[in-house]
Amino acid sequence: MHTECPIPVSADETVRLGHGSGGELSQRLLREYIYPHFDNAWTVQAHDSATLPRIGGRTVFTTDSFVVSPLFFPGGNIGELAVYGTVNDLAMSGARPLYLSCSLILEEGLPMKTLAAVMASMGRAAAATGVQLVTGDTKVVEKGKGDGLFINTAGIGSLEHVLSIAPDRIQPGDSILLSGDIGRHGMAVMARREGLEFDGPLLSDCAPLHEPVLALLEAGINVHCLRDLTRGGLATALVELAEGSRRQFSLRENDIAITEPVLGACEMLGLDPLYVANEGRFVAFVPPHQAQQALAILQKCPVSADSRAIGTVSASEAAEVILRNSIGCERLLDRLPGEQLPRIC
Amino acid sequence: MHTECPIPVSADETVRLGHGSGGELSQRLLREYIYPHFDNAWTVQAHDSATLPRIGGRTVFTTDSFVVSPLFFPGGNIGELAVYGTVNDLAMSGARPLYLSCSLILEEGLPMKTLAAVMASMGRAAAATGVQLVTGDTKVVEKGKGDGLFINTAGIGSLEHVLSIAPDRIQPGDSILLSGDIGRHGMAVMARREGLEFDGPLLSDCAPLHEPVLALLEAGINVHCLRDLTRGGLATALVELAEGSRRQFSLRENDIAITEPVLGACEMLGLDPLYVANEGRFVAFVPPHQAQQALAILQKCPVSADSRAIGTVSASEAAEVILRNSIGCERLLDRLPGEQLPRIC
Repeated sequence: MHTECPIPVSADETVRLGHGSGGELSQRLLREYIYPHFDNAWTVQAHDSATLPRIGGRTVFTTDSFVVSPLFFPGGNIGELAVYGTVNDLAMSGARPLYLSCSLILEEGLPMKTLAAVMASMGRAAAATGVQLVTGDTKVVEKGKGDGLFINTAGIGSLEHVLSIAPDRIQPGDSILLSGDIGRHGMAVMARREGLEFDGPLLSDCAPLHEPVLALLEAGINVHCLRDLTRGGLATALVELAEGSRRQFSLRENDIAITEPVLGACEMLGLDPLYVANEGRFVAFVPPHQAQQALAILQKCPVSADSRAIGTVSASEAAEVILRNSIGCERLLDRLPGEQLPRIC
Repeated sequence: MHTECPIPVSADETVRLGHGSGGELSQRLLREYIYPHFDNAWTVQAHDSATLPRIGGRTVFTTDSFVVSPLFFPGGNIGELAVYGTVNDLAMSGARPLYLSCSLILEEGLPMKTLAAVMASMGRAAAATGVQLVTGDTKVVEKGKGDGLFINTAGIGSLEHVLSIAPDRIQPGDSILLSGDIGRHGMAVMARREGLEFDGPLLSDCAPLHEPVLALLEAGINVHCLRDLTRGGLATALVELAEGSRRQFSLRENDIAITEPVLGACEMLGLDPLYVANEGRFVAFVPPHQAQQALAILQKCPVSADSRAIGTVSASEAAEVILRNSIGCERLLDRLPGEQLPRIC
C-alpha cells in the first residue's frame, strides 16, 4: 500500500552533501525517503546488491537515465517516467519486466518534499507495473552541479517465448500498428517549460506498455518487431527500423492520430508532431493475416485502446519511410539532422 | 583490442544538446565514441536492451552512479571507477561479474576528448575484468545543469556457490581480514582537488576485487561476509556490519596499513584515514581455522597482496567496533554523524 505522502516531511528540509556521504545522513535518507516506497525482501536487507531467484527463460537487461525538466509535468513526473521508461524498453523485446534498480543523483538544496513526492510516485508506478525495485544507489552533487534530480533505472526481464523480435524480422506485407495518438509527452513537457496554456487538456502519455505486448505474445501473434516511440518520435523510430531492416514503409497520414492540443502546441512552437517524443506509445510489425486479431487485442488494453493500423511494409528494398496524405501527396521521412527537443525524458 | 585513442577526435569538438536528442547526432556519438570501446555481440545490434544467454546459478543485480570530481585523479578516472565499483559490488556477494550497463549524463560543452579518454578507459577496464558492457543510454543536459560527466553502471553476476555471504553469518571467533592499505582513493581525489603535493606517490587504490573473492570461494573457504570499503571507509563499513550482525569486533590498529602520503594528507586536512574512501579494498570474515589459508590465497592475488588479519569477532553481543592501539588504549568507532568527503566516487 502506498499512500500519497507516508512520511512527515518538514516543510523546509533540503538535500545536503552529507546525504550522499555514506554515513548516518545517507542511512536516514534511505530509511525515511526511499525504502518505505519499495517495501520488499531486498530493500529490507539493505545490501549493495540483490540476489534474485532463478530467472525462467532468457534474461533481458536494459538501462535509461532520466533528466526530464521540469521534474513534474502535466500527466506525470520523473519518477513514473523512470519506472515506465525502463519497463517499456524491456517490453519492446517481448520480455516480462521483473526487477528494477534505482540510482539517484541529487543536487544539494533539492527540497525533501520534492524527493518524497517523486519516490512515492515511483513506488506506485512499480507496484502498478508488477516490478520489484530491488537495488539502488544515491549520490549528492553540490548546488549548481546538477539539476535537482536525475534518476537512472536499469531493468531485468524474462523472455518467456522463442520469438526473435528485431528489425531484421520485418517482412514485406507486414502491417504496421500504432498504439495510440502521438506527441503528447513531448508537448506536455514543452508546454510546461514554455508556460503555454491550451483550451483542451495536454497530458503526457507516459505509461507502461508491457500489458499489450504480453497480450499479443500470449495470443500467439507472430510479432516481428516492436519499438517504443521516445526521443525523436514516430518518424525517428520508423526511419531507424527501415534502415535496420532495409525495408520500405508506406504510411497513411490520415491514420496517425494527433490530438488538437498537440497540433496547436506544435504549430505554435514550429515543431513536427511526427518527431515529438512519446513515453507510452509503440509500433508493432505483424504479419498481414494476424493484423486484425492483433489490433483487437491492443484495443482491449486501456493503454493501447486507440491502436490503429497506419501502414504496411513494401516489397521494395529501399530503406525509407514514405508518408502519403489524404490527397495522395507523398513525403519522405528522414532523421532530423540536429537538435531536437532536449530534456524530454 | 583497445588502443589509447582509436578515434580521431577534433581538438575543439564538444558535447552539444543534440547529442542527447535521439537523432543523427546521437547516433554519431554512439558510433564514434562509445561502441568502438565495447565491441561485442550486443553493441553491434544497437538495441535498447540486451538479451543475455541463460545465467547459471542465481543472478545478482546491482547499480551505482559515479559523480567523482575531478573526472581524472591520480591512479584512475571516472570510467575505471564506474566499471570497478559495480564489479566490486557484485564480487562482495560472491558473484562472478558478467554484464554491465553504461548510462551517461553529459553536460553540454564537455570536450569530446575527455569523453573519448573516459570511454577508452572504461573499455580497457571492462576487458581487464572480463565483463561485457551490453546496454546503455546517453543523455545531455544544458551547460550549468551537470558537472561534465556522470556515469551510471548496473551489473549482473552469477552466484556459482551455495554459500550465503551476509552480515548475519558473522560468527564469534571469525577472523577479520583486510585486503591492503587504506585511504588512498579518497586522499588521491582530495589531493588533486585541493592542489596538494606530497613527497611520495599518492595514487588511488581503484581496482577490481572479483579475483581474490572468487579465489577464496574456489578454494572452499567458508566466507561468512564480505564488504568493500567505499564511502565512509573501513570504520563505516565495520560499524554497519557490527550493527547488521549484532556482533562486537576487536581490531588491532597496528595491523591496519596506512601509507605515509595518506597519513600526511589526512593530517593536513584534519581527516581520520579510517573514514576515508577506498575503491579497491575489502574486508572478509572467515572462520578462525581457515584464516591462515584465506590470507595466503588473498596474498597471492596482486590486488590483495598486502592482506592482513586485523582483528576478530568477540563473543559479546554488543554491536560495536573497538580499536586497540599498540599501548593497549581502546577507542570505540562510530558512524560519522554528518558530512564526509563528497564527490569521492
